Amino acid sequence: MRTGIFPGSFDPLTFGHLDIIRRSKNICDKLIIAIAKNSEKNSLFSLQERLEMINTCCHDISSFLDVVFFDTLVVDYCKSNGVNVIIRGIRSVSDYEYEKTIADLNRKLAPDIETVFLLAGNEISFISSHVVKEAANYHGDISALVPQFVSDKIRQKFRQI
Amino acid sequence: MRTGIFPGSFDPLTFGHLDIIRRSKNICDKLIIAIAKNSEKNSLFSLQERLEMINTCCHDISSFLDVVFFDTLVVDYCKSNGVNVIIRGIRSVSDYEYEKTIADLNRKLAPDIETVFLLAGNEISFISSHVVKEAANYHGDISALVPQFVSDKIRQKFRQI
Amino acid sequence: MRTGIFPGSFDPLTFGHLDIIRRSKNICDKLIIAIAKNSEKNSLFSLQERLEMINTCCHDISSFLDVVFFDTLVVDYCKSNGVNVIIRGIRSVSDYEYEKTIADLNRKLAPDIETVFLLAGNEISFISSHVVKEAANYHGDISALVPQFVSDKIRQKFRQI
Amino acid sequence: MRTGIFPGSFDPLTFGHLDIIRRSKNICDKLIIAIAKNSEKNSLFSLQERLEMINTCCHDISSFLDVVFFDTLVVDYCKSNGVNVIIRGIRSVSDYEYEKTIADLNRKLAPDIETVFLLAGNEISFISSHVVKEAANYHGDISALVPQFVSDKIRQKFRQI
Amino acid sequence: MRTGIFPGSFDPLTFGHLDIIRRSKNICDKLIIAIAKNSEKNSLFSLQERLEMINTCCHDISSFLDVVFFDTLVVDYCKSNGVNVIIRGIRSVSDYEYEKTIADLNRKLAPDIETVFLLAGNEISFISSHVVKEAANYHGDISALVPQFVSDKIRQKFRQI
Amino acid sequence: MRTGIFPGSFDPLTFGHLDIIRRSKNICDKLIIAIAKNSEKNSLFSLQERLEMINTCCHDISSFLDVVFFDTLVVDYCKSNGVNVIIRGIRSVSDYEYEKTIADLNRKLAPDIETVFLLAGNEISFISSHVVKEAANYHGDISALVPQFVSDKIRQKFRQI
Repeated sequence: MRTGIFPGSFDPLTFGHLDIIRRSKNICDKLIIAIAKNSEKNSLFSLQERLEMINTCCHDISSFLDVVFFDTLVVDYCKSNGVNVIIRGIRSVSDYEYEKTIADLNRKLAPDIETVFLLAGNEISFISSHVVKEAANYHGDISALVPQFVSDKIRQKFRQI
Repeated sequence: MRTGIFPGSFDPLTFGHLDIIRRSKNICDKLIIAIAKNSEKNSLFSLQERLEMINTCCHDISSFLDVVFFDTLVVDYCKSNGVNVIIRGIRSVSDYEYEKTIADLNRKLAPDIETVFLLAGNEISFISSHVVKEAANYHGDISALVPQFVSDKIRQKFRQI
Repeated sequence: MRTGIFPGSFDPLTFGHLDIIRRSKNICDKLIIAIAKNSEKNSLFSLQERLEMINTCCHDISSFLDVVFFDTLVVDYCKSNGVNVIIRGIRSVSDYEYEKTIADLNRKLAPDIETVFLLAGNEISFISSHVVKEAANYHGDISALVPQFVSDKIRQKFRQI
Repeated sequence: MRTGIFPGSFDPLTFGHLDIIRRSKNICDKLIIAIAKNSEKNSLFSLQERLEMINTCCHDISSFLDVVFFDTLVVDYCKSNGVNVIIRGIRSVSDYEYEKTIADLNRKLAPDIETVFLLAGNEISFISSHVVKEAANYHGDISALVPQFVSDKIRQKFRQI
Repeated sequence: MRTGIFPGSFDPLTFGHLDIIRRSKNICDKLIIAIAKNSEKNSLFSLQERLEMINTCCHDISSFLDVVFFDTLVVDYCKSNGVNVIIRGIRSVSDYEYEKTIADLNRKLAPDIETVFLLAGNEISFISSHVVKEAANYHGDISALVPQFVSDKIRQKFRQI
Repeated sequence: MRTGIFPGSFDPLTFGHLDIIRRSKNICDKLIIAIAKNSEKNSLFSLQERLEMINTCCHDISSFLDVVFFDTLVVDYCKSNGVNVIIRGIRSVSDYEYEKTIADLNRKLAPDIETVFLLAGNEISFISSHVVKEAANYHGDISALVPQFVSDKIRQKFRQI
């Protein structure tokens, strides 16, 4: 059985993340979605809220997924958990350059762990958690950027602030 | 069983290709190396010579590989042969931009076929079939760029020309 | 009245060109679509065929358009015809770099003529005349890349070859 | 009458901004220069100081300009004010990538509003408000980067700090 | 005698810096390594600690080097000290774009001072002080990124925090 | 004495080349301008004509220069002639990517030979031999792109064709 890991902040989950998650079924039999604990500071949503978003929006493929938190280098998490494929999305040239740096470092630290890239679908390549938060901050319509469940949570959050 | 396809010209096979081929074992159980027939014109090596290079240099993983020729769009070959993962390597920003165009086109033509990318190892990211032929053309030492079997064939070829 | 010029080869007209043409209505009152005569050599379609494609596919906005041939530097055509806005589309970083070189040259040669850029819609940014011809050459489905009238012409052309 | 909007922080106004403002006369009959209110925090100059800079340095084209503050998404400001052309400058590949993301988002939110790009003149493409502040912070000569009125204001500001 | 200057933060010194320092012998007879004082805030290591790292790890080429602190624009330091070659490394496209901006600014401010670039060796082009600190923060193995002396200092530092 | 080599086609010599040549005085005491013999095919000017252009336009710094032809890999020419610094200009991201590939290859073939890069001055970064020939082909004004001596030769050449 091939297990892959998709690490990130997911603050919040977007249609971009969902695209990568669903397309990962072509690469592995099980996908670990790993939420970085260190992204807690300065985050909009708590770790638990982000976990809930993923579980709710992916309930139809729940047997394919494990959602976890992690607090180490991704490659060290992989070694400890017998995972050898990291999955990442690329949306732009600057994403490519950033991901290349991390992939080169990871290969140096753990040559047996492979990083595999999917290119974001072109219709959604402009979506990022950052763009979602910026748009929401100015009361923009974010229904094309995130699932309904997430946009409801964002609206609640900005009402509180 | 997951089957992937690695399409290209392989004129000639380089250490860059071999890196992608071997790392593909993390993604699929069987890899079809598909040599584009249309690359015959203006090529240095015949289709048969390129097939021989791959078979010789990959004999230790021969059960993982199928080497074929193809003469259609890659996605049409995939549909006819039940393959749904295309594997491609990226060495640079310009590679990324070229591959993104092709991947976007392919998704439009065949949404169920996924293109998966590996980033070239940084020590060999400068290697391409084109660079090999240029270096050989000026009698440069290409032993760090291609396997011994290939460099012997290239030397013979340039002696004939 | 503001007049703009959209120079190119249009060999053949694609949905990418049509996107730029229609969006140009936000910038100018009249658009000159200028087909480069020098693109005749090695072209798939004759100048007349390309003119016909544009006229047919844009008949609903024919009062907005003038379709012409030109045989000089674009800025010299602009000077002779009292045009001072060149409109160009950008699909990618490599497009950006190419267009920047030309725009810098044009500003040096004719500081009063402005080049204005529209970014290709993300759903169609992978489309180019080159990609269309490549796909058609391998009998791929090009109905998502060009208007029906153009795809019929391409099919005829490839049947002849 | 065509009205365009040039949104930004203008903290401070540079020769780069002035280049875009003056060249916009080729695209529209009226230009709204819109200063983002949210850029107040961490800014060097107050909103009023920035407004004054623009009015002073552009007094010769004052009939072409409206200088305003805004506090929403740019596209929402456009809808409320009947503007349908956003004008932005691009200086580099990273600018291009950033602007593409915003333009894609804006097209999703408001398909009728067009974003039009001018490429920075090559002699001044290195100028940004950030570079100006960095240079001034180290007592560098900024007379080639901003108008005299602005450089006087910056000198006063750094004397106060 | 040709004197060059290599300005930076060196927080901490990496194998990337050492590569540039040693290769600079092909360009100049004396190299001034200039540590930016303003990088003190938010730095991991004090200016003195960084000076010590460089002196220790480069003791075999100490006659080639001068290690100094500086607190002005680099070009102003150059003018005051009779240096006319700035040496910088480039690892990526985004490095290139950043360095181009600074080099263009410097040429404007001081046309007689030349900036010369070396491209990072491909095996180490992913190394940066930032990546080192990130990896160390997660207890990753950094022995391939920095000299032994530096990795010992980092380990001590993170133990203290 | 430091000797550098500036290899290229120089078909024809442009203000871009002259900028690199003059700025090279900051890096070396002697500069070998090496014209690639293989660029003869499909060239506009003969090797002798290009040599004459360089000698004429650089006669004021003739003691700094040696103009030669070469017919091997640049690094092999360097080894045979005791040169260990290759000088190249970079005008754009695509130049950077191309030059990086060649520099990585050269370091593999000859680790002791260093490639040093100057970034093209921003006012002239759009100039290339290719752009000059394109502009001349359409009877454009090239006086801002090449020295008078070269533009006279180009005019003669295009009159002959």
